[in-house]
Amino acid sequence: MKEFELIKHFFTKQGVERKDVLLSIGDDCAVVASTENQDIVVTTDTLVAGVHFPHETTPRAIGHKAVAVNLSDIAAMGAKPSWLSLAITLPEVDEKWLSEFSVGVFDLCEYYNVQLIGGDTTQGPLSITITAQGLTPEGKYLSRSGAKTGDWLYVTGNLGDAALALRHYKKQINVKTEYVDQIQAKLDYPKPRVLAGQTLREYATAAIDLSDGLLADLGHICNASNVGANIVLDAVPLSEIMKATLSSQDAVNLALSGGDDYELLFTVSEDNKVGMETAMSSAGTPVTCIGQINTSKVISTTLNNKAVPINSVSFEHFSSN
Amino acid sequence: MKEFELIKHFFTKQGVERKDVLLSIGDDCAVVASTENQDIVVTTDTLVAGVHFPHETTPRAIGHKAVAVNLSDIAAMGAKPSWLSLAITLPEVDEKWLSEFSVGVFDLCEYYNVQLIGGDTTQGPLSITITAQGLTPEGKYLSRSGAKTGDWLYVTGNLGDAALALRHYKKQINVKTEYVDQIQAKLDYPKPRVLAGQTLREYATAAIDLSDGLLADLGHICNASNVGANIVLDAVPLSEIMKATLSSQDAVNLALSGGDDYELLFTVSEDNKVGMETAMSSAGTPVTCIGQINTSKVISTTLNNKAVPINSVSFEHFSSN
Repeated sequence: MKEFELIKHFFTKQGVERKDVLLSIGDDCAVVASTENQDIVVTTDTLVAGVHFPHETTPRAIGHKAVAVNLSDIAAMGAKPSWLSLAITLPEVDEKWLSEFSVGVFDLCEYYNVQLIGGDTTQGPLSITITAQGLTPEGKYLSRSGAKTGDWLYVTGNLGDAALALRHYKKQINVKTEYVDQIQAKLDYPKPRVLAGQTLREYATAAIDLSDGLLADLGHICNASNVGANIVLDAVPLSEIMKATLSSQDAVNLALSGGDDYELLFTVSEDNKVGMETAMSSAGTPVTCIGQINTSKVISTTLNNKAVPINSVSFEHFSSN
Repeated sequence: MKEFELIKHFFTKQGVERKDVLLSIGDDCAVVASTENQDIVVTTDTLVAGVHFPHETTPRAIGHKAVAVNLSDIAAMGAKPSWLSLAITLPEVDEKWLSEFSVGVFDLCEYYNVQLIGGDTTQGPLSITITAQGLTPEGKYLSRSGAKTGDWLYVTGNLGDAALALRHYKKQINVKTEYVDQIQAKLDYPKPRVLAGQTLREYATAAIDLSDGLLADLGHICNASNVGANIVLDAVPLSEIMKATLSSQDAVNLALSGGDDYELLFTVSEDNKVGMETAMSSAGTPVTCIGQINTSKVISTTLNNKAVPINSVSFEHFSSN
């Protein structure tokens, strides 16, 4: 199996042709034009079969998710995604698999005007590594390290649905049949908050995408910003399915530690609170204030205005950092 | 195993800190500054254990080779390498392995002033995917598609030593003990022709790095440039070890189809021949003229000025494109 042969066949049918791509798939490297007054953000994520997705996952969902988790990182920087490199390791050449996988990849690429510029196809146990790049105006990117004491803590969307789907799949939680498709879609087809991230560039002090779970990812912001935070558990946004399936305590616990949400967690100063909420509302992105940054250097939680202890693996991960 | 935990530990000790890296390992993305009047080249290569290297390969050699094969692609574009993203999939956390692997990665990075800007560490069967980037002056990159009828065909270095080492390892060819270390080093520690590639930017009409084997890679140039080529078999550069180990015919066949050389194959117009040879000599890079581009659309070979048939798997790969 030679480099690019498969990629050429399945991955040159893409609809996106960006003007800043000077040379695409088919040479030793792709070539892209650098743009004056823009910074370039770069992220790499690997998905391994049996580790990051069940072996039975459809190829289309794998393709979608491999792109989505990378675009989610780009969204968290406030950047606009531009180029993808795709490395696929496959046990064998499977045209049907590749064809469906490529639909999952290109649907997202076309939606966000991202061009696949190259990659590698190798033989081995199934895994996908994508390197995605994006652009921000010079010096305007968001990072994890800008949160300040007093900033308000926000998330986009609802939390926990993807984790609920995974636990249903593992037969750890029983979800009503009528709900299964909806939460499975949250797990298999996460929607990266790309437009929300760009909107936040003007308002947020720090941002991260929720891949490891709310507590763990808030831990990353607190570590990088050298602050602490309190989460108001009553405020954590949950879907109707989460509320109908789990007790209120179990639902919040899953939302805190579940992971795979690919929502954005971000901090906003008091002064920017209204402006941000207005802009996100115009962009059609639901946001919820779930707490506040403080000087404590730890993460605390409150329920009905009373402190409650955190009992979570994710938190242990954070505290061991 | 959480993202970046391993990478943070083993991969932040690097010596290279480039001014154009605004944010490195530890956030959702790395951020690099784009430079006016420069193009960016991007390449991705995966190495899978048992496919691209024997399972017994030392971690240091794997680290070196994973970087080298990517820098070799960048060299073939005439670009200067700048940034690396590294995705490692490992069966288990093995500190010794990671420590030695990182030495292989950083030795090359430091030599070429390339900064590791991020990546991902996941659990699964051993494989490494690197995305490397580099810079060229605007519009000055080399590609596979510029070869013209009458251009002279050149290679850097000698061909076939790495393939000889692999066949010795597979017990298909017996190599004298005194030679083994030297050819094994050619297989395990290929030296990407980074400086030679940048020198060629001013002289070559087309270039490619030799990873698939001379015939296959010349096929890529001929396809992309819509030309043919003749190789003068007497001229193909062979090491003393190749000459001492194999018959002249077997040696040339291995050099034509072996692969893994990571030398550069390039074309130069008659007018630029002397200038190129002088510049490459100043740069300390040995080059050999091995043939000429023609209008035939096929690859032919001559020996003692007589046409000889090609009998090679690599050529079949080319002709089936």
